[in-house]
Amino acid sequence: MGSLDANCNASPRGFSPLDIDDFRQQAHQTIEFICEYYKGIESHPVVPRWSPAISAVSSPMLSEVQATVFPGMTHWTNPNFFAYFPATLSSAALCGDLLASALNPVAFNWLSSPAVTELESLTLDWLAQLIRLPKGFLFSAGGGGVLQATTSEAILCTLVAARKMVLERAGHDGADKLVVYASDQTHSTFAKACKIAGIAPANIRIIPTAREDLFSLRPDSLRAAMEADTAGGLLPAYVCATVGTTSSTAVDPVAGLAEAASRFGAWVHVDAAYAGSACVCPEFRHHLDGVDRVDSISMSPHKWLLTGLDCCCLWVRDRARLTTSLSTDPEYLKNRATESGAVVDYKDWQIGTGRRFRALKLFMVMRCYGTANLQSHIGSDVRMARGFEEMVAAEPRFEVVVPRRFALVCFRMRPRRVGADGEAEADAANRRLLEEVNNSGGIYATHTVIGGMYVIRFAVGTTLTQERHVKVAWELFRDKAEAAWEAVQ
Amino acid sequence: MGSLDANCNASPRGFSPLDIDDFRQQAHQTIEFICEYYKGIESHPVVPRWSPAISAVSSPMLSEVQATVFPGMTHWTNPNFFAYFPATLSSAALCGDLLASALNPVAFNWLSSPAVTELESLTLDWLAQLIRLPKGFLFSAGGGGVLQATTSEAILCTLVAARKMVLERAGHDGADKLVVYASDQTHSTFAKACKIAGIAPANIRIIPTAREDLFSLRPDSLRAAMEADTAGGLLPAYVCATVGTTSSTAVDPVAGLAEAASRFGAWVHVDAAYAGSACVCPEFRHHLDGVDRVDSISMSPHKWLLTGLDCCCLWVRDRARLTTSLSTDPEYLKNRATESGAVVDYKDWQIGTGRRFRALKLFMVMRCYGTANLQSHIGSDVRMARGFEEMVAAEPRFEVVVPRRFALVCFRMRPRRVGADGEAEADAANRRLLEEVNNSGGIYATHTVIGGMYVIRFAVGTTLTQERHVKVAWELFRDKAEAAWEAVQ
Repeated sequence: MGSLDANCNASPRGFSPLDIDDFRQQAHQTIEFICEYYKGIESHPVVPRWSPAISAVSSPMLSEVQATVFPGMTHWTNPNFFAYFPATLSSAALCGDLLASALNPVAFNWLSSPAVTELESLTLDWLAQLIRLPKGFLFSAGGGGVLQATTSEAILCTLVAARKMVLERAGHDGADKLVVYASDQTHSTFAKACKIAGIAPANIRIIPTAREDLFSLRPDSLRAAMEADTAGGLLPAYVCATVGTTSSTAVDPVAGLAEAASRFGAWVHVDAAYAGSACVCPEFRHHLDGVDRVDSISMSPHKWLLTGLDCCCLWVRDRARLTTSLSTDPEYLKNRATESGAVVDYKDWQIGTGRRFRALKLFMVMRCYGTANLQSHIGSDVRMARGFEEMVAAEPRFEVVVPRRFALVCFRMRPRRVGADGEAEADAANRRLLEEVNNSGGIYATHTVIGGMYVIRFAVGTTLTQERHVKVAWELFRDKAEAAWEAVQ
Repeated sequence: MGSLDANCNASPRGFSPLDIDDFRQQAHQTIEFICEYYKGIESHPVVPRWSPAISAVSSPMLSEVQATVFPGMTHWTNPNFFAYFPATLSSAALCGDLLASALNPVAFNWLSSPAVTELESLTLDWLAQLIRLPKGFLFSAGGGGVLQATTSEAILCTLVAARKMVLERAGHDGADKLVVYASDQTHSTFAKACKIAGIAPANIRIIPTAREDLFSLRPDSLRAAMEADTAGGLLPAYVCATVGTTSSTAVDPVAGLAEAASRFGAWVHVDAAYAGSACVCPEFRHHLDGVDRVDSISMSPHKWLLTGLDCCCLWVRDRARLTTSLSTDPEYLKNRATESGAVVDYKDWQIGTGRRFRALKLFMVMRCYGTANLQSHIGSDVRMARGFEEMVAAEPRFEVVVPRRFALVCFRMRPRRVGADGEAEADAANRRLLEEVNNSGGIYATHTVIGGMYVIRFAVGTTLTQERHVKVAWELFRDKAEAAWEAVQ
């Protein structure tokens, strides 16, 4: 990787790191470099061979990155990438983010760059309307939205707001009595946020789900848990419901959970990181039914709405509840705009103080493409996933483990005999199959375990993926199936 | 601002948001747009007039941004921006970040894009060596570095690690007995991190500083506070020392504080967000003396090392202490590389799971410019600030309030009479002066209050600032001084 001082511009005389001509030349070169990368994207193995360190070379910079970094990368933009959830991207987002980087405002409060805050508020209101959130989440109604980095931050911030709300009601005592709730399908970041916030592990309820409920959290299970806690002198404080879980895109019934939680005064947050983007399409919007009764909802356009990493939207119904729990007021940031009470200071809506101008890329994606294109984008991915699902279902050796809801297909090779031994064999064979397919270098997919089964996750939706990639991917699974069984028997 | 659906590309047929030719054309246009912006940067008022909403227009996108967003922005890249701390930028960082956005890997763990993790570890080791951190902070010695968004995240993560360390030693009980320490000059994000982590306000010690100590935290004050807490049955857990405070770039004596804290087993973190970058120059490195005895240190190259927002480096001496307090292990992320124990999974070093490829821009800044240029960049800003300080000192009506240490000058007009009334008048006059200067639109500076005095902060160092800008700025202050006095008397 060369060394720090083998640099391409070592003269300290007249160092001007933002010289316009230099920038123009380097930036245009970078763009051509990126275009060449995209053109050849399928020539890179999706996921690299296991090697725990990058090797050492020394050459001019872009070619150095190409020679040294590319071979060790997992290429998330490769259309044969079907792992995790895809991170989608677009020209509008790339250009918006480049411009935001060039402007480089640090808009911690309104005054530090008013239009940055205003554009963010406007864009969040637009997106709220696009996925038809209730009016209560708009700024005009006392709610509002903010751009954060990831769902983890949204959960942590709303958890802190919920703690304050519940403790104030209970008389500011008993932080050790607060209990939080989620299902066994909730993203691990929920447990991590609880750990960071100092919620004792004994007060975190991870409620089991079942295959017959398609791995959704049952409202009666939540109610029973809250009743038991209340009877034990504890305070139900926070529920994290998920619309589109990471394992299998299970959807927790938002209305039922909100109803159950309301009796106990707990804050309800909806994590729609992945599936929230699908709600730009009318046919998916019903998954958010009941959201008019929750306190907050987050979704990540960096997952499925073409903005690139990182971009997570958080909306709250009562913005004062969030900001009073996160606000700071140091002398060096005091200003008349803040004192007027008429402006939004986003530092009080997030963990950090400084923040990037993330709104610009989201704004440009929405403004440049518009509703019809965004719906078309979601629809196209869902159609490709449906095609994959149908190919799996048509092949008797395979089964779709849970019905596909969005663009993730959870499937496996069926067990060859009934009972625990048969299941264990199937787990081993499916694990082997996934390894073989990934080792081919042709595609990359990942796994999960749900309902005790080892399941292959096939997530459709990198921006460049087309039907032909999905078809070839399925053929790879199908063709390697027999060998996988043989290898484990 | 138009509306969502007045978009420039509304046809849902054949929507391909990452079409290479479209991207090439739009990206090159964006770059030319940015070059024009930089060329005309001084024609924009640094800080806009107060207006609580952006107005409505509708036109093609980049010109829409120019017409609607620019007039409402505070222009952080304007060379006449002297507010807060500057956010520095460079061509290498912009190109590196653009490439990172185009690659768009979500490198939460090693396997999800190995080279992204490897490059980050390498780059953090390089920067540690550049500012001569002790070997204990390098990966080879069991330490290591990570890129986070901001100092807030670094403080919160290390606070969580400290809590686990101290509670384990104390026998896993008594979270309500943990006490944390900082000075009254520590950034407000410290108190916010404590609030998020659930540290009770009664257990947060904000220790006063004094002008005669140049607003540094005295080790004997820390020791006395810890002794009193220990005598009261409490557990000293965490100290946040600052090298270069936000108000006045005060430097807490790292060695003395580490010595005091070591008797009580508290974790010591050094926040060198701003001044850490200066330590690439040998003449400033002594401010970190004693860092060999602390547990963690963070600095933000987005402040003063040309990387653009956001980019905060956190190094820890014992990486296992950090990762065991933040790790998660969901089934869908399990993989052989993680199980081998031979790789770094950065999701266990931060709050979130997903993460941007921030290392690329920091790598490109260091690799492209090298030590000599980075030193020259810091030296040039310091020289300009020294020039400003000398102009202030040469003018009898003004005074430098605390000696300049880096590139921030804290100054004011002197009181015209001795005593409290004279101080109050001076506060009013200086406040008025700053308002008048900022309202001129020519420059932007901010204020603080230290030692009870209203003080103007003049922070030199946007990437495009030259000596002539500093000179004109000083003339503005000098020329408006008399009128400011008159206005308040």
